[in-house]
Amino acid sequence: MKFPFTSEQLTKLHARIETPALIVWQPNLEKNIADMQALANRFDAALRPHTKTHKSPLFAQWQLNAGAKGITVAKLSEAEVMAAHGIDDIFIANQITQVQKLKRLRKLHERIHLTVGLDNPRQIDLLRPFFKDASTPLNVRIEIDSGLKRCGVTVGNDLVELAKAVARQPFLRLDGIFTHAGHVYAARSAAQVEAIGKQEGALMAGAKTLLQKNGLRIATVSVGSTPTVPFSVRNPAVNEVRPGNYVFYDAMQIALHAAAPEQVSLFVLSTVVAHPVAGRLVIDAGSKALHTDGAGVTGHFGLPVNIKGKVVRLSEEHGVLELPEESTLRLGDPVLLVPNHACAVANLFDVYYLINEALQIKTVPVEARGKSQ
Amino acid sequence: MKFPFTSEQLTKLHARIETPALIVWQPNLEKNIADMQALANRFDAALRPHTKTHKSPLFAQWQLNAGAKGITVAKLSEAEVMAAHGIDDIFIANQITQVQKLKRLRKLHERIHLTVGLDNPRQIDLLRPFFKDASTPLNVRIEIDSGLKRCGVTVGNDLVELAKAVARQPFLRLDGIFTHAGHVYAARSAAQVEAIGKQEGALMAGAKTLLQKNGLRIATVSVGSTPTVPFSVRNPAVNEVRPGNYVFYDAMQIALHAAAPEQVSLFVLSTVVAHPVAGRLVIDAGSKALHTDGAGVTGHFGLPVNIKGKVVRLSEEHGVLELPEESTLRLGDPVLLVPNHACAVANLFDVYYLINEALQIKTVPVEARGKSQ
Repeated sequence: MKFPFTSEQLTKLHARIETPALIVWQPNLEKNIADMQALANRFDAALRPHTKTHKSPLFAQWQLNAGAKGITVAKLSEAEVMAAHGIDDIFIANQITQVQKLKRLRKLHERIHLTVGLDNPRQIDLLRPFFKDASTPLNVRIEIDSGLKRCGVTVGNDLVELAKAVARQPFLRLDGIFTHAGHVYAARSAAQVEAIGKQEGALMAGAKTLLQKNGLRIATVSVGSTPTVPFSVRNPAVNEVRPGNYVFYDAMQIALHAAAPEQVSLFVLSTVVAHPVAGRLVIDAGSKALHTDGAGVTGHFGLPVNIKGKVVRLSEEHGVLELPEESTLRLGDPVLLVPNHACAVANLFDVYYLINEALQIKTVPVEARGKSQ
Repeated sequence: MKFPFTSEQLTKLHARIETPALIVWQPNLEKNIADMQALANRFDAALRPHTKTHKSPLFAQWQLNAGAKGITVAKLSEAEVMAAHGIDDIFIANQITQVQKLKRLRKLHERIHLTVGLDNPRQIDLLRPFFKDASTPLNVRIEIDSGLKRCGVTVGNDLVELAKAVARQPFLRLDGIFTHAGHVYAARSAAQVEAIGKQEGALMAGAKTLLQKNGLRIATVSVGSTPTVPFSVRNPAVNEVRPGNYVFYDAMQIALHAAAPEQVSLFVLSTVVAHPVAGRLVIDAGSKALHTDGAGVTGHFGLPVNIKGKVVRLSEEHGVLELPEESTLRLGDPVLLVPNHACAVANLFDVYYLINEALQIKTVPVEARGKSQ
């Protein structure tokens, strides 16, 4: 794969950054942000990037500066971090059901333009005591299951009844519908990815039509996932997309043909700590740096960039590389890797090392790391 | 499985703790610490617990108070955190090879009784410029591969030559040998676990004999891993054990028959966020709270305690539970789980909620979380 740094540049960076470390190659990050915005613009859809991937208010601001309409988060505490940095249009694409969180949700609602997910009439009862006296109603989007079989209602009578129930509440405002076609990560070919993306768009278009026939106004039809967006966004009913991973891409996206290796902007920088036998190198990045997530999709635990071979095993603090041929790398040398799942990996680190074309290094905190509550 | 809290107690805790959260049941934690110390004492071995599991100076201090001789860490930055809290006998059971880290290693060596791992003669050359003028030599233990096929030398001529090379350096002090029989996590029966533990002890005894025959003094013969310690410690040559996981235990240890469910002290507390169809509940703990590590051993992603069923899938922020029968749990209710791999999970959170028998809650920071450098 094409390599963002020359071997000498990598050695220089490695002398300045302790490993394991998260490296962001800024030229690719900026291009990824611009490209996804251009795609959304071409199809007249709003881009509301999912910031669970990078968990960084700075990178979120870059996405907004490029034209994003607002942001998406997975958790209330992520929303609080982003709001504290001045971001004022946030969709929590998740159900909030714990009582203490509903108090915090109300507080955040007083400050910013907040929207939350909902997929069950009982959630209305949970929200009522906390929002019934709010001066403006809480924006709500109904989650639809487009095949992931996680949260969400199926398109049919349950959806209509739930939407009607939401529309009846003076303390809620029915903004629209959303889905996440996360089952795309089980796809095994580019054609399957395309088919799932098209189905996602068509299903949501059908849901909108059904709700409108029942007298419900649906302003927003929102779809997500980096692999499906290029296909779902083509459906004229879709007017918002929520990809997250595209800022970085990773080995899973490469395996799904959703990104070329040349587009990746996130890397884990590691150091060779052992070379016990020929053909095996051990690096200082294990499951606490590369995460085990995604190996089922890629068949490995990380894609080395500056050396041929693959990470065949992770223990907590060690990655074991098998090499097809003996390497010239020695103890103390750098190994740069594309991780399997950028979102899970970013959550393991406290800072990014952002590298620009002049090879200047800037540390950027992963401010919302661990904000899972 | 036996459940540390009644249903009413769990509801009360859940009203005070936002989820997902790490819960430590203090009575079990204390008993686990005492039981492992008693095992080590019975066989005249020093206990040097691996603190990568809990990453907490407080819990490390409890282990020392119970009789541990010192502690083990995986990373230099973990050692720095522990030393900053007054712990002064630390073994870094890992190879340190990056130049910047060697500078930090030297600084730490000035302050505490520090020991590091080594498995390659080239590492001596890396250490030399940083330690050649130290007032006391750096303690070194040679890592032996007892079957994990990660780091370490095999018992034979390479080991003898490496030990001789270490012994020749005035800036190093050869303290002994160590191994980690991590391949035990691939065992599929209690008998296999016992066999691997016995092999671990016997291999290390043989290594000690070989080195002594070659005129080398071996003070410490150190073995690790929670499942193998009860068997490896019986070998008279073994005089130090380094288990880590035993403070908490987890679903992997249960699957390996290394712990009974009643011994577990670490839980993930979560909340039901969706109940989209009969037989499926969705909780707010996903791969960013439960980690995907260990599913290959257990066949699931977390063991629910207060409900029958299993976590069949994780996405980043969601756990999907399949239930054998319909549950009475509703949106907003708590689900308490035993995670697959306690060490990986503790590293995802910033605090423990430590619960004592009076159900008082104390927050304990995971001080060394993310200290992977």
